[in-house]
Amino acid sequence: MRHPVISLTTDFGTSDHYAGTMKAVILGIAPAARIVDISHEVPPYAIHDGAYVIAQAARFFPPKSIHLVVVDPGVGSARRPILAEAGGQFFVAPDNGVLSMVFEALPPASEKVRHITADRYFLQPLSQTFHGRDIFAPVAAHLAAGVPPSRFGKRISDHLRLDFFRPRRTGKHVWTGLVLHIDRFGNLITNFRLDEFPSIVTGPFELNAGLEKITKLAANFTEAIPGELTAILGSSGYVEIVINKDSAARRLGCGSGAPVELILY
Amino acid sequence: MRHPVISLTTDFGTSDHYAGTMKAVILGIAPAARIVDISHEVPPYAIHDGAYVIAQAARFFPPKSIHLVVVDPGVGSARRPILAEAGGQFFVAPDNGVLSMVFEALPPASEKVRHITADRYFLQPLSQTFHGRDIFAPVAAHLAAGVPPSRFGKRISDHLRLDFFRPRRTGKHVWTGLVLHIDRFGNLITNFRLDEFPSIVTGPFELNAGLEKITKLAANFTEAIPGELTAILGSSGYVEIVINKDSAARRLGCGSGAPVELILY
Amino acid sequence: MRHPVISLTTDFGTSDHYAGTMKAVILGIAPAARIVDISHEVPPYAIHDGAYVIAQAARFFPPKSIHLVVVDPGVGSARRPILAEAGGQFFVAPDNGVLSMVFEALPPASEKVRHITADRYFLQPLSQTFHGRDIFAPVAAHLAAGVPPSRFGKRISDHLRLDFFRPRRTGKHVWTGLVLHIDRFGNLITNFRLDEFPSIVTGPFELNAGLEKITKLAANFTEAIPGELTAILGSSGYVEIVINKDSAARRLGCGSGAPVELILY
Repeated sequence: MRHPVISLTTDFGTSDHYAGTMKAVILGIAPAARIVDISHEVPPYAIHDGAYVIAQAARFFPPKSIHLVVVDPGVGSARRPILAEAGGQFFVAPDNGVLSMVFEALPPASEKVRHITADRYFLQPLSQTFHGRDIFAPVAAHLAAGVPPSRFGKRISDHLRLDFFRPRRTGKHVWTGLVLHIDRFGNLITNFRLDEFPSIVTGPFELNAGLEKITKLAANFTEAIPGELTAILGSSGYVEIVINKDSAARRLGCGSGAPVELILY
Repeated sequence: MRHPVISLTTDFGTSDHYAGTMKAVILGIAPAARIVDISHEVPPYAIHDGAYVIAQAARFFPPKSIHLVVVDPGVGSARRPILAEAGGQFFVAPDNGVLSMVFEALPPASEKVRHITADRYFLQPLSQTFHGRDIFAPVAAHLAAGVPPSRFGKRISDHLRLDFFRPRRTGKHVWTGLVLHIDRFGNLITNFRLDEFPSIVTGPFELNAGLEKITKLAANFTEAIPGELTAILGSSGYVEIVINKDSAARRLGCGSGAPVELILY
Repeated sequence: MRHPVISLTTDFGTSDHYAGTMKAVILGIAPAARIVDISHEVPPYAIHDGAYVIAQAARFFPPKSIHLVVVDPGVGSARRPILAEAGGQFFVAPDNGVLSMVFEALPPASEKVRHITADRYFLQPLSQTFHGRDIFAPVAAHLAAGVPPSRFGKRISDHLRLDFFRPRRTGKHVWTGLVLHIDRFGNLITNFRLDEFPSIVTGPFELNAGLEKITKLAANFTEAIPGELTAILGSSGYVEIVINKDSAARRLGCGSGAPVELILY
């Protein structure tokens, strides 16, 4: 890897030194690394939102990219730091489920997960509250600098895999899902995948979110009737609930995690 | 171009994967590209603000820089994607007027605009809602990687040129302009260019914005009387309305696009 | 320096062209520079917050890194632009105290400060309101491109050193300090250094902030009792006041600069 790519996805925000300090640590160890910010605005402690963001972005990165994912409410506790290989890419993260949607999106056979224990690659003294700086960033950087994955720790198979993103069947024609993520425009990204629910495109459907019922599907934002809640085929592969040039989230009073019901006849 | 510069200006915010995914697509096609964020915080759908931001930043970039400008409320509709060469730089954007102030700032003879139609450079399947990822980023990246501009589509001359940024004369001594942009400090950048209205510096003037009249000009913020609305000669070449260490926008209740009247005696 | 690192710390926010324009200027002068954003979200004009952020991040950067620090409420006034060498790194900033905590953190013998006067390295025409673009960025870039520090101006020793970050003893057992910074999570970083007040760890203590008294110390966030204000040993080397998964700043109604009293028995 001549110019290895290291991406950053965190809930650190950008008003503190946290993200910049991680980049400093990386450049000290792997000067040739190309650091790419995905987002530092994952809502604080929001493992589900972080899981969605990294899974969406990672699939477009070049092979062998290294993804640092630090949404880590359990920092300093017994939760393990892990290094995962999946789909030809690397992920360095706490073992709290934040990689669940990455594993879902990629071929399972390609998934190898290690418990990071090789503390010779950690910063010393090791703080109990900023493992992004002291563990995750240096491990990603040493990996980028050529240290083989096996040097960081032993393979494990009991890492946490959450399935919050899978809708449950709750009636003959009914599935209960949720809002995976609210984007900047106030679009609600639901967890109903288009490839799992193709009849949304063809047949009649009903989506219930907040106190509203959505029954229309548009191909894009401008096809939606102004001011009207509409479902669209989202660029992420999931059904989204949107209003053209307005915030569906505000209209519905829904946040990330809110329930969404799908009825197919 | 050994290390081509690709700048990003969008209304995507940074809480989603959108900007990161565009960077991933770019690095997959043009690994040596140097990606520079100008802003992802253009207000949602705000073509005028985006037009101001890219025009201000672009003029300081090195020759042959490639600017990706994605403020695109019409994504998926008939609006065209365009590739413009202007002032020795490249701009990849929707044809919705977001490049109007770039064209204004640079010599017109140097302006060449193409309708991007070469879908072999697009990501497939092409979404209807995220052309930043599927069209604009890959086109910019292929351009950075050496594909000549002519390969992306035919020259056009009917691209959209807005003139919202030009004050209109509305009386013998009166011009009606507007607020181009509110910056982070609450300074109002008006569309009165210093080189077009040099008598602001020498003679008496009156600027009316919100419910207030501004008649004083200061050379910089610290020269302004604390707490008092003052005009300054902005670093962008436009007159700004400011309060030293306070927000003029909040005081005036003005937002981007608000009318500003200039009276010169 | 084959790929010199230039970091950026400003109060410019990211909704304007300001940060992007500084990067453009840098790349025009030093094409090989590696630009790293530390933060552009220092609160407007907040020299103390800026001083904290750059001091925390800088100590993790590689030797010879160049740090641009532009929190500059006095832009255009008589305040001097300075170039400081400290701890093997370079700092380009206004002489308003924003480097005070950098000087504090690094060995004093290594500190060399110059008044930047060599206007051949400035952008022309020089604005009175955006020295980030016209002075600080080009100076940092020329330094990165190999211009020796001595070329930018003469050594000075009367640069501004603030000591706002030092607690004062205000009673036999009492020290009065302040909140250095509120981070994204609402944690209060106080100015009580762990190495100066080691008895916080061993003995009983009392921290008074807002209307609350904090007497418990936890090793990390997850050890804190949910919903309870707790002191922790922060990753920055300072005592922090936190609530596990909640905002201590909101609970206490404290902002950056608020007083904090420490009582040790």
